[in-house]
Amino acid sequence: MKKRVGLFKGVLFFLMVGASFAFVAGAAHAGGGYDKYREVFEPLQAIPPIPADNQITPEKVQLGKMLYWDRRTSKTGATSCGFCHHPAYYGAEPMRKSVGINGDIHKRNAQTILNAAFLERQFWAGESKDLEEQALGAIKSHVASRSWPKEVAERLNRQPEYRELSIKVYGEPLTEENIGKSIATFVRTLTTPNYPLARWLNGDENAIAEQQKRGMALFADKGCIACHAGPNFSNSSYQKIIVPGGEGDFGLYERTKEEGDKYRFKVPSLLNVAQTAPYTHKGTVNDLPSMVRLMGREMLKTELKDDEVEDIVAFLHSLTGEMPQHFLVLPVLPTGGGEGDFGPDLLPSGKN
Amino acid sequence: MKKRVGLFKGVLFFLMVGASFAFVAGAAHAGGGYDKYREVFEPLQAIPPIPADNQITPEKVQLGKMLYWDRRTSKTGATSCGFCHHPAYYGAEPMRKSVGINGDIHKRNAQTILNAAFLERQFWAGESKDLEEQALGAIKSHVASRSWPKEVAERLNRQPEYRELSIKVYGEPLTEENIGKSIATFVRTLTTPNYPLARWLNGDENAIAEQQKRGMALFADKGCIACHAGPNFSNSSYQKIIVPGGEGDFGLYERTKEEGDKYRFKVPSLLNVAQTAPYTHKGTVNDLPSMVRLMGREMLKTELKDDEVEDIVAFLHSLTGEMPQHFLVLPVLPTGGGEGDFGPDLLPSGKN
Repeated sequence: MKKRVGLFKGVLFFLMVGASFAFVAGAAHAGGGYDKYREVFEPLQAIPPIPADNQITPEKVQLGKMLYWDRRTSKTGATSCGFCHHPAYYGAEPMRKSVGINGDIHKRNAQTILNAAFLERQFWAGESKDLEEQALGAIKSHVASRSWPKEVAERLNRQPEYRELSIKVYGEPLTEENIGKSIATFVRTLTTPNYPLARWLNGDENAIAEQQKRGMALFADKGCIACHAGPNFSNSSYQKIIVPGGEGDFGLYERTKEEGDKYRFKVPSLLNVAQTAPYTHKGTVNDLPSMVRLMGREMLKTELKDDEVEDIVAFLHSLTGEMPQHFLVLPVLPTGGGEGDFGPDLLPSGKN
Repeated sequence: MKKRVGLFKGVLFFLMVGASFAFVAGAAHAGGGYDKYREVFEPLQAIPPIPADNQITPEKVQLGKMLYWDRRTSKTGATSCGFCHHPAYYGAEPMRKSVGINGDIHKRNAQTILNAAFLERQFWAGESKDLEEQALGAIKSHVASRSWPKEVAERLNRQPEYRELSIKVYGEPLTEENIGKSIATFVRTLTTPNYPLARWLNGDENAIAEQQKRGMALFADKGCIACHAGPNFSNSSYQKIIVPGGEGDFGLYERTKEEGDKYRFKVPSLLNVAQTAPYTHKGTVNDLPSMVRLMGREMLKTELKDDEVEDIVAFLHSLTGEMPQHFLVLPVLPTGGGEGDFGPDLLPSGKN
């Protein structure tokens, strides 16, 4: 609601300014008529919201990064957060759906972890209220890790390096709660505030090309921005859609059991969208032009023309930020510190 | 053979030097009696052998690194070289056996990729003659990737970045042959020549502790060094052993079909062994003390005493080198460049 008022205010401001300076042709031309969109779009902040009870410290980030990559967080040792939310693929992965343990397949596509800290809730239907809950949810997931955070804590506390780092950060060895807090803290540092559109919004006229500006105008004027609003390009609402291959996945309904929530899914952020194919919660759309066309048809009830699609795709490329360098650097993890760490509980059952 | 002559020469030299300076007690004491072992052990060279037809260039290393991490090298997109030979675990992984695609389990433990370039042949029974063949072997493996390098080349050539980089390096787009060459080249850069024993061998008296020196002496005098010889701690011979859980895995026999080769496996390198639990080709031994004890019993036919085991384990820790920093830094991989990249051929069959 506040957002919408801000948007109207912005448009009003533009109209007033436009009226006052209508004759200053040079100034009007500098922006190529796109200056009004500086009021419609907002650049991402550098720092996401941080919960009062989980402040960021360098040691906590380090601990979270170790856990993010440690395959011993999963029941069989086959996987960890980083395997599906992979830095090589901008915090996501190029598969339709993730492979969990024992070859099991998730029912939805893995979203990028980048800028997840700016989202109101996590997962495709907002199943987790925050990153702390999300991290533990993935560890406990029947498909992803099939593990129990308590067991993970016991297993990793046998490694002196984990035990000591956790005591340093929390005053106690690893627990379920501080595993969630640590991973969430690491994820909060994975933001990409420096992308071409943000630079343009901050005054660098040449940060985006003419075609991208046309796409930006179309994105706003055609109505994409109604849902893909705000700095994160998501207003956190749940919209109804049956995507290709999406029949039978009821989305929000599975959480609320309210009939009206059937096939509702959280509006995804569009930051770095050009780097995170395939698309939709089923991962069934291979490329960005097809996805833009689908959104036009399904959500805006309009058939976008070829050049409109091309312009919007060009615009979406202006949302690709710089990868956080520390996300690309892997930690070296403690191994061999205690007996039992590599025992049968780390073996996929019945297959060894 | 050459090695053994060198060893005898070294011992002879020590005896002569010892005779000449028997009264210079101080000098003799500086080495604590361990100086002779400087002739028994050899530090790893900084640069491994490089094949004449596959020279190392920075662009080729970069291309190899991208392929090493790219999950599109596997049939379903579930895995890549880096997933099992992982920098976080010193180029190996903490599982008994690797999980391949569709949850299939390898029959043997994944060995570290670090210093593999110094080995005469690759895999546990020398199945591949060099790193080029090894890389393609893993891609083609029914369990690992179940993919065809030709298809991988076609798939990745659709990404302009891969296509252009390959043309720059090889004068042509990706092919089966240059996929193997690129990955092998990246792996050749993954060496750890700077470890405490090497520093001691090069003259830094304090690089290893007294207990490690005792372990070094035991390692040589008890006979471990007969097979774990040379800078890589492997003489590349095939030794007969049935490890726990190893019944039915015939090793070299499966390649040669010669009765005498049953249960023969290549002597593994011991560099970084303290970081790469679990042990044996079945991954069935959890920790280093148990493994040292097992080797004493099975290979040396001797029951090592507790303090001997502890000393040898301490010595083995002196073989832990510094992780190559560029191995820890992930590449950002091209995505979304062409239709079909994320099509059904990247989905685990029958499970989506």
